[in-house]
Amino acid sequence: MKKSAPTIPAPYADRVARLRELMAKRKLDGYLVKNRMDQYWLTGFTGEDGYVLATPRRIVLLTDGRFDESANLECPWATKVLRKVRTPERTAQELRKYKLKRVGFDPDHFTVAEHQGTQKAAKPAKLVALTGGVLDMRLCKDAGEVAAIREAIRVAEKAFTKLTKWIKPGVTEAAIAARLAYEMQRLGAQEVSFPTIVAVGPNSALPHYEPGDGVVTKDHGLLIDWGARVNWYVSDLTRMIWPGRIPPRMKKIQKIVREAHDRAMEFVKPGVTAHQVDNVARRIIKKAGYGAQFGHALGHGLGLDVHEAPRVGQGTDIVLKPGMVITIEPGIYLPGVGGVRLEDDVLVTETGYELLTTLPL
Amino acid sequence: MKKSAPTIPAPYADRVARLRELMAKRKLDGYLVKNRMDQYWLTGFTGEDGYVLATPRRIVLLTDGRFDESANLECPWATKVLRKVRTPERTAQELRKYKLKRVGFDPDHFTVAEHQGTQKAAKPAKLVALTGGVLDMRLCKDAGEVAAIREAIRVAEKAFTKLTKWIKPGVTEAAIAARLAYEMQRLGAQEVSFPTIVAVGPNSALPHYEPGDGVVTKDHGLLIDWGARVNWYVSDLTRMIWPGRIPPRMKKIQKIVREAHDRAMEFVKPGVTAHQVDNVARRIIKKAGYGAQFGHALGHGLGLDVHEAPRVGQGTDIVLKPGMVITIEPGIYLPGVGGVRLEDDVLVTETGYELLTTLPL
Repeated sequence: MKKSAPTIPAPYADRVARLRELMAKRKLDGYLVKNRMDQYWLTGFTGEDGYVLATPRRIVLLTDGRFDESANLECPWATKVLRKVRTPERTAQELRKYKLKRVGFDPDHFTVAEHQGTQKAAKPAKLVALTGGVLDMRLCKDAGEVAAIREAIRVAEKAFTKLTKWIKPGVTEAAIAARLAYEMQRLGAQEVSFPTIVAVGPNSALPHYEPGDGVVTKDHGLLIDWGARVNWYVSDLTRMIWPGRIPPRMKKIQKIVREAHDRAMEFVKPGVTAHQVDNVARRIIKKAGYGAQFGHALGHGLGLDVHEAPRVGQGTDIVLKPGMVITIEPGIYLPGVGGVRLEDDVLVTETGYELLTTLPL
Repeated sequence: MKKSAPTIPAPYADRVARLRELMAKRKLDGYLVKNRMDQYWLTGFTGEDGYVLATPRRIVLLTDGRFDESANLECPWATKVLRKVRTPERTAQELRKYKLKRVGFDPDHFTVAEHQGTQKAAKPAKLVALTGGVLDMRLCKDAGEVAAIREAIRVAEKAFTKLTKWIKPGVTEAAIAARLAYEMQRLGAQEVSFPTIVAVGPNSALPHYEPGDGVVTKDHGLLIDWGARVNWYVSDLTRMIWPGRIPPRMKKIQKIVREAHDRAMEFVKPGVTAHQVDNVARRIIKKAGYGAQFGHALGHGLGLDVHEAPRVGQGTDIVLKPGMVITIEPGIYLPGVGGVRLEDDVLVTETGYELLTTLPL
């Protein structure tokens, strides 16, 4: 008598079912998930090594002894394989065991070496490229995921509010970044969701500045771009702080950025493309004469990764759907002077959008 | 008159020269560096997008507008290309411009999609896989790099010493991890070099535990595995703290781990393989009856990445050479009871080893 497949708990049952549907559609009898956040989304397993192999009847965790107990705790319903040999060979053994013939993988996640090594060992099974297999399923968040993102935002905002009471002239960018990370972790963050940007005055003209020796003064603005990872989901915000009087030139820019932010956000609804949302902000900034000073995309998807699909920029034809969470973060950067960026996290709803962040701009 | 190639400053001149030697040996007239730390090692550029292209006469930074000023500041001697089109197409344009025919890349760093996209656009140039091209050159650290690692260790140790005065029964693992990160950043760390492990009692039996609600008590040991990234170079240490009396069973284990640590470290010298160093520790732990409870490699290389070559484990035939920096981190883990791991960072010298860490075990 064949042992029946183990029952998969929510929310994973539905996700595994969706992957199996995709596999059937592409005539695949196996799928190798490599990306760690794809693995977590599909199974709840947080191990850092190997693949999750989906077959029509099983979910196999191909990992190693370091993650034995994690697998037991997080994913007891899956078949656990602790490899003693190298991943390509061990993977090939499993493909043979289940007599798999066409096994999908994401060419954006497999390196050339991993692909070649696995393909060589796995013959006669054939590896078949399927771009964005699991990632595309992660585009629209379910209620549990939106709640997790809200919590990541709450932690980031609460920490920022505490931070603003602590910031005073004389403290360095690096000290502010350290303090903000500490406050977020004390509030339950696993880690910062990306290296915090704290940039004083002219430093804020570098969109990807690393916090350093820059010192807070009353004469300059302060740009802070930060986020928290809480239960694996992330937040991503940017706020400006003006410890003194805001210089007229920066005030003018901030007004334009704010306008671009608000109009783009209000444009968010199911059925429009990510490109069109970017257009709304870009036109406003261009019309004000700062088109060349807004050199990045308007935003990006947010979830288990801090940059995931859809990219909210020129040339992204992804149509927004309910459940997508995106950032809206227009900016204008004047080299040698300073920059202004304002960033919020926005949920696409059935009828439009919901602003998830609650901190005032 | 042809413009002469720009002068490359130290330490990059030597590194670029070594890469060009390797290219000549492999009959390559170009090499695409993707890995961010490889790019930094070769050029000092810290941008996060695109490739560094090495040709026999030029170093080209293929990046985008976000990293314009970083490129100007960090690498003014290189040729900067801010792409407006997708990376594969822009890369192909450069390969054509310099009439390159055989262009190397690291198959461990390029994804299948990146490779296919670039190869397709780059015809008739041929992409040639060269595993570990730059990474292998990073194996032996120069004096400046060793100094940078020492500084990363100093920051990690100083923060830990402050932390130990702060830890008391009742504080949680997560709070300790947050505090340690904060102290390191205040001392100049850019970030933690990896997510800190703080594990109380039975949690320490999970080698890759994530700090959570576990509370410090006098009855349990505390395992802390942490490191700092300072000026891009990293440290990696593990220490045990016993807030109360050390239980006899754990004391016995700690003695064995200490013995394995010391003997393996003393065995480190040029000419032995990483495998042999692992053997020394593994034999001691096996002989004591805990072979099955030491489920990971003895250590790993350390530098710009927290896990880089050589892996100090079974099956690594890399021969140790002066300038290599490795961790020595034996451990014994008793499920449900607790684990002991002791980790130091060790430099291979001309005659043997130098213990870089200074904290007592």
